[in-house]
Amino acid sequence: MDTSSLTDRTVVPARASAAAAGPVRVGIAGATGFAGQELLRLLAAHPHARVTAAMSSSPDGPPRALPALARIWDGVIAPFSAEALAEGADVVFLALPEEAAATIAPALVERGVRVIDLSGAFRLRDAAAREKWYPATKLGALRPVYGLTERNYEAIRDARLITNPGCYPTAALLALEPLAEAGLLAGDVVIDAKSGISGAGKKPSERTHFSENHGSVSAYGVFGHRHQPEIEQELGAPVTFVPHLVPLDRGILETIYARVRPGTTSARVGEVMTAAYKDAPFVRTTGETLPEIKHAAYTNFCDIGWRVDPAGERIVLVAVLDNLVKGAAGQAIQNMNVMLSYDERTGMLPLRPKPETTER
Amino acid sequence: MDTSSLTDRTVVPARASAAAAGPVRVGIAGATGFAGQELLRLLAAHPHARVTAAMSSSPDGPPRALPALARIWDGVIAPFSAEALAEGADVVFLALPEEAAATIAPALVERGVRVIDLSGAFRLRDAAAREKWYPATKLGALRPVYGLTERNYEAIRDARLITNPGCYPTAALLALEPLAEAGLLAGDVVIDAKSGISGAGKKPSERTHFSENHGSVSAYGVFGHRHQPEIEQELGAPVTFVPHLVPLDRGILETIYARVRPGTTSARVGEVMTAAYKDAPFVRTTGETLPEIKHAAYTNFCDIGWRVDPAGERIVLVAVLDNLVKGAAGQAIQNMNVMLSYDERTGMLPLRPKPETTER
Amino acid sequence: MDTSSLTDRTVVPARASAAAAGPVRVGIAGATGFAGQELLRLLAAHPHARVTAAMSSSPDGPPRALPALARIWDGVIAPFSAEALAEGADVVFLALPEEAAATIAPALVERGVRVIDLSGAFRLRDAAAREKWYPATKLGALRPVYGLTERNYEAIRDARLITNPGCYPTAALLALEPLAEAGLLAGDVVIDAKSGISGAGKKPSERTHFSENHGSVSAYGVFGHRHQPEIEQELGAPVTFVPHLVPLDRGILETIYARVRPGTTSARVGEVMTAAYKDAPFVRTTGETLPEIKHAAYTNFCDIGWRVDPAGERIVLVAVLDNLVKGAAGQAIQNMNVMLSYDERTGMLPLRPKPETTER
Amino acid sequence: MDTSSLTDRTVVPARASAAAAGPVRVGIAGATGFAGQELLRLLAAHPHARVTAAMSSSPDGPPRALPALARIWDGVIAPFSAEALAEGADVVFLALPEEAAATIAPALVERGVRVIDLSGAFRLRDAAAREKWYPATKLGALRPVYGLTERNYEAIRDARLITNPGCYPTAALLALEPLAEAGLLAGDVVIDAKSGISGAGKKPSERTHFSENHGSVSAYGVFGHRHQPEIEQELGAPVTFVPHLVPLDRGILETIYARVRPGTTSARVGEVMTAAYKDAPFVRTTGETLPEIKHAAYTNFCDIGWRVDPAGERIVLVAVLDNLVKGAAGQAIQNMNVMLSYDERTGMLPLRPKPETTER
Repeated sequence: MDTSSLTDRTVVPARASAAAAGPVRVGIAGATGFAGQELLRLLAAHPHARVTAAMSSSPDGPPRALPALARIWDGVIAPFSAEALAEGADVVFLALPEEAAATIAPALVERGVRVIDLSGAFRLRDAAAREKWYPATKLGALRPVYGLTERNYEAIRDARLITNPGCYPTAALLALEPLAEAGLLAGDVVIDAKSGISGAGKKPSERTHFSENHGSVSAYGVFGHRHQPEIEQELGAPVTFVPHLVPLDRGILETIYARVRPGTTSARVGEVMTAAYKDAPFVRTTGETLPEIKHAAYTNFCDIGWRVDPAGERIVLVAVLDNLVKGAAGQAIQNMNVMLSYDERTGMLPLRPKPETTER
Repeated sequence: MDTSSLTDRTVVPARASAAAAGPVRVGIAGATGFAGQELLRLLAAHPHARVTAAMSSSPDGPPRALPALARIWDGVIAPFSAEALAEGADVVFLALPEEAAATIAPALVERGVRVIDLSGAFRLRDAAAREKWYPATKLGALRPVYGLTERNYEAIRDARLITNPGCYPTAALLALEPLAEAGLLAGDVVIDAKSGISGAGKKPSERTHFSENHGSVSAYGVFGHRHQPEIEQELGAPVTFVPHLVPLDRGILETIYARVRPGTTSARVGEVMTAAYKDAPFVRTTGETLPEIKHAAYTNFCDIGWRVDPAGERIVLVAVLDNLVKGAAGQAIQNMNVMLSYDERTGMLPLRPKPETTER
Repeated sequence: MDTSSLTDRTVVPARASAAAAGPVRVGIAGATGFAGQELLRLLAAHPHARVTAAMSSSPDGPPRALPALARIWDGVIAPFSAEALAEGADVVFLALPEEAAATIAPALVERGVRVIDLSGAFRLRDAAAREKWYPATKLGALRPVYGLTERNYEAIRDARLITNPGCYPTAALLALEPLAEAGLLAGDVVIDAKSGISGAGKKPSERTHFSENHGSVSAYGVFGHRHQPEIEQELGAPVTFVPHLVPLDRGILETIYARVRPGTTSARVGEVMTAAYKDAPFVRTTGETLPEIKHAAYTNFCDIGWRVDPAGERIVLVAVLDNLVKGAAGQAIQNMNVMLSYDERTGMLPLRPKPETTER
Repeated sequence: MDTSSLTDRTVVPARASAAAAGPVRVGIAGATGFAGQELLRLLAAHPHARVTAAMSSSPDGPPRALPALARIWDGVIAPFSAEALAEGADVVFLALPEEAAATIAPALVERGVRVIDLSGAFRLRDAAAREKWYPATKLGALRPVYGLTERNYEAIRDARLITNPGCYPTAALLALEPLAEAGLLAGDVVIDAKSGISGAGKKPSERTHFSENHGSVSAYGVFGHRHQPEIEQELGAPVTFVPHLVPLDRGILETIYARVRPGTTSARVGEVMTAAYKDAPFVRTTGETLPEIKHAAYTNFCDIGWRVDPAGERIVLVAVLDNLVKGAAGQAIQNMNVMLSYDERTGMLPLRPKPETTER
C-alpha cells in the first residue's frame, strides 16, 4: 500500500522532451476488446497523444476497421506484432490476456518503451501468490508499479512498467485505503461487488449470453477470485470478496462492510476521505448520499459514499465506477498522463480541466 | 391458408385408445435448448402426458440433469438416439436444427410415431422455396400439416407430422388471416417485428452477447429472412418483413401496417376478429387497446389489437406472444392436445380450464 | 424463531368442514398492486379456492377489470369494503399498506375470518420495535403467527392471523435458521440483498422510473430498513442488512456472509440443510452450485447454495426467490394451504404435485 | 423542406464580435430535465460557451445543485426567471414544456436574445395544424427556423429563433429527405420507431415505471402522434408513423419502409446519401451494414443504413441516434455552433475536430 502523502506533491511542468517531441506516440495491443476500444475512443480525443499502432491480440488475420468508432477513430487495427509495437510507440498499452502480457511486457520495457499493462500479470508482488494466480509471469528485474493513480502518484511518475489495477480492486482500495491508513478499520471486511456484463469480456460464452443475465443476478468466484489477493496485498489485511454479475453493461457498485474503531462517526470518515482526495479530480466523495452506478458510468470518476451505524461500530461504504474507464482504460490513460507530466485529466472527457481546480 | 370455418367444429371426446392407454408417452429431441426446456416445463405439468424420452440434439456426451427444472421435471437428458425415440414414445417433439429434423422426422413417421417438428424443415410447401431455404428437407410422401392451431384445427386432428409455425409467422398470421379472409386487406403489408434475444437461440455468439444487446436495438434479415416466405405462403400475399432484436429475453411484438378496403372501421375489424377467435382460448383480441409483450410473456396467449386511421384506409395491428410458448413449445403442446382430442388448454398453465368457457 | 422439528409432522387429511363446504371463499384487499395481482393469478388456478371478493385498496372509484389477467381471472375489482370482505370470504388476503392492514385485520379476525396479512403490520413481536416501525398497529388480543411456512408449519395450521414474512427476511431466514439452530454460526452476519424493482411497489416515483434504474444499481435503507429487525427477531441475533435495487423486474438474490464454528465444512452445512428441508417442496438446496435469480423467478421456490472457505471459518450463502411469489403471494397461498390442510403445493404451478414426492 | 445544396456552403470565420466578446453567455431554462441536463453536460465542455443562467422550469423552489454532474458542471439551478434569462444570456436554450416555451420565446426574441427551443411549440408552420397540436403557440412576427442542421444550414446561421426538431423527425428526415429530393420515393412511407424510455421524459408515471417496460415493448400514439405532422411538413408527403417504447434508456432506431422508383439500386441510394452528407460530420452513412442504437448512443451521430429489395421496388432504411443528443441537446448545440459560426463539432465530444476533415 502506498503510504506517501498525497499532499506533498509538487506540480511538475510537462517534460521538455515530451513537449519538444510533439504528441507522444501510443501503441495499443488488444485494441478490439472492450478495454482496447475504450482506449482508442479516449486516446482519439487526447490532445497530446497520437495512436501510431493499434493491434489485435493475434498475429493472424487481416487488418480491420472499427465501424462503431467511425469519425472518432478512423484507423485500422493491424495484426499483433511485438516488433512493430516496440518500434512505433513511446508508450504501449497492453489490453491482452495475461499470458500474452506476461510474455510481451518485459521485452518492450527492455527496448525502452514505457508499458501500461491492463492485465493482472504483474499485479501480485508475493512470488507464491503470483505463481498461483499468474503462472506465466516471470518478473526478473522488472519493478512494476501498481497504478492506482490516486494512491501511488509519485511512483507512477517514474515507472517503466505500470500494472493497471483490476476493476474491482480500484473501487475497493479507493474506498478502504484512507480508512485503513487512519486506523479506523477494526476487524472483518466484506466486499460485495456487483458488475455489469462487460466485465466478463467480449468472448461469447454461456455466461455472457443475454438470456442468462437478463432478469437475473449471479455470484461467482466465491473464495477463489484473483482480485481478492490483489485487494489484500494493497490493503494489507484479509477481506472476503464476492463478485456478482448484474444485468447491465457497464459499471460496478461495491458495498463494503467493515467494523470500525468504536466511536467512529460519519463526520470523522468524511474528514479522512476529504483529506485523502482533496487533490484527486476523479474521486468524488458523496458522504451519506450513496452513489449509484449511473452517476459514474461513461466517466473516469470513482464515487464513494458511506454510512456509519448509530453505535459507531460498523461502516457500510458504497463505491461505484465504470469498469471500462476508471476500472481499465481511463485509469490507464490517467496513469500515462501522470507518467508524462500532463494534467491527469487530459483527454478524459467530458471532464473538462477547469482553471479553478487545484493543480497537482 | 386454412379457410375452413372455425365455427363448425364439434367437440370430440378424448379417444378411447388414448384414455385406455393411460398417459401418452412423449419424446423430446433437443431438450436442452430454449424451446426444449420449455416443452419439458410444460409437459411436466400435463395431466395426460408422460415424458418417456428426453434427449439432447447430439448422440454424444453423458446423460445430464437440468438443475433449473429441479422439482418441476427431475428426469435426465439422454444423448440423442432415433431408435430409442421411436421405441419409447407415441408422440415426439423435435426441437432440433432443421437439418437434423429433416433427416429424423420421416423415419419416425414411418414407424408410426406422431411427430411435431418445431424447426422450419417442413413448413414450406413450394418445392423451389423449400429447396432454397431448407435444402436438407426431402418431403417424399409426407403430408406435413401447418400447425397454426387456431387456423388449422381440423387438419391437425388427423396429422401424422405437424410442422409447428415459426414464432414470427404465428403472430403475423393470427393477426392478418381473418382480415384477408374477410377481404379487408388492400395492398402492401409491412410487418415490423421486435423479438427478445431468446429467439436467437441458446448458442453463444457475438449476436447473443449481453453487451451487444443491452441498451440497443438491431434489425436483421432484411429481405432475406425465411419466415417471410412462410408468412407469404399462408397469407397468400406478399409482405415486407423485418425482424429486430430488442433487449429483453422472451416475447415478440409485431406492428403490422396494411392498406384496407376504403371505409373499413375499427368496429368492422372487431367483428371479423371476434368471429374468427370466438372459440380460441389462446387468442385475446384487445381492440383499440394495443397489447404489450409483458401481457403475453410466459403464457400461450397471442394478443391482438388494432387501430384504423380516420380515413378508413390504413390499419395498424399489434400482435404479441411469447416466442418460446405460443411461438414454439406452447403451440406445439396445443397441437398435441388437438391431435389427441384433449381440451387444447390442457397443461397450459396458468390458464386453468374453466367450466364456464365454451367447450370446443 | 420456530424451533419445532420439521420431521415430526404428521399428515393430516383435509378437514372435513373444508371438504364438505366445497371451495374455500377467498377475499383479496389490494388486488390491483403487484402482490395482489399475483394472488389473483395464482388463486385463479387453485382447485379448492374461489375468489369471492377482489377489492382495491380504496373505497372510492368504479369497479374495474384487469385486462392483463383476461382469461386467467376475468372478475372485477370492486372498491374496498371491510363489510363485504367479512361477509363474503372465509379467508382474506390483505395486500394493503401497513396502516390499512393494521386497522382492518383485527376486525376481520373478530368476525371469524382467517386473515393472511402481506404487510409488515403484525410482524414484530417486541412492542417497542413495533411502535417504532409500525406505529399504526395495535396488537390487542391478536396472536399473529409468523408465516415462514417451512419454519413454522405447525403454528400456521391453527392460526387465525398469519403475518406473511417480508420478501427479504424469507430468503435470509430460510438460509440462516438451520445453521443457527445447528450452532454453526459464530459472529457477525452480513446480508447483502439485491432486489428487482417490483419490490419497490407499483406507485410511480423517481425511484421506480425506468431511466433511474436501467444500467444502474443502488443501495438504500442502510442501517434503517425495517426488514432488519424482522430478520433479527426471527434469527435471534443481530445482522447487518443492506438492500439494493438491481435493474430487473422480479426476483431477489441475497448474499449472506457469516463466520462459522471453526472446522465447519461444506458437507456439514449440506447435512444440516438437507435435514431442515427434506420435507419442504419449495426449498431447493443447491450445495456449492450457487443459485441465480432466473432459476426461481415466477416460481414459489427459494433456492439456497453455499460455499465454506478452505479454513472452515467463513461461509457465504446465496439465496434466491421471486419477491412476488415466495416473497409475497405464493408464500401467502402456501400458508393458506397449510391452514386449510391442503397439500401446500396446491395451486402453485408449474410445480405439479407428484405421487412420488414424500407427502407431508 | 430545405432544398439548398449542402455543397455550396462557404466557410465563414467566427464572427469578430463573438471572438472579441469572449465566451458566449448561455442560458438554459428547464435544466433539470433529461434534455436540460444533457445541455449542461455538453456545454460545460464547450470551449466558447459559458453557462450564465441555468434554471428549472418553475419560478418556485430553492436553488439546487446536480450531484450527478459534480466536477463536470458545478453550478446551481435557479428558479425560473424570464427577466434573468433575458439579462444574463446571449443565447437561450428552452427545454421546457411546450406551453411555457410558447409563452417565453417571443419575449426573449424581442429582447434580442437568440433562442433555441427544444419543445415542439414552433415546429409546425401550417396554422391549423399548429392550432391543433400546439394551441398555446402564437407565432406573431416570429420566423422560426427548423433546426435540422444538416438540411437547413444556411437558414440556421441567421436565425433568431430556432425550433429544434423532434427526436423522431430528426432520424426520419435525415434518412428520407435526400431520397425524396432525388425523386427516388414512390408511394407509401411507413416509419416504425423504437425509442428508449428517456424519450418519455423524467416525470414519474405508470408509463415510465421500470416494471411496465422491463421485458416489454409497447406501441403508442398510433395515428395520433404530433411528430407525424412534423415529419410530413418537412418531407412534403404523408407518412404512417408509429412510435414504440423499448426497454432501454437512451436511443432511437427507426425502420423506414418505402416504395422506390423501379430499378433503384442500393448503390444509387448510396450515391445520393453520400452526396447529401459529404460535409456533415454527424451523419454516418453505413450502406448495407445496418446501424444499431449502441453505435450512436451518447454521441451526436445519426447513422443511416439501407437495403433495397432484389426487384428494386422497395427500400428499408434504418436510422439511429441518441434521443437526448442528436435528438435534442446535441443538435441544439450544433445549431448554436452554426448560428455563431463555430465549427459545428465544437464541444461535441468525443468527436474531436480533426484537421484532416473538410471544413464547412
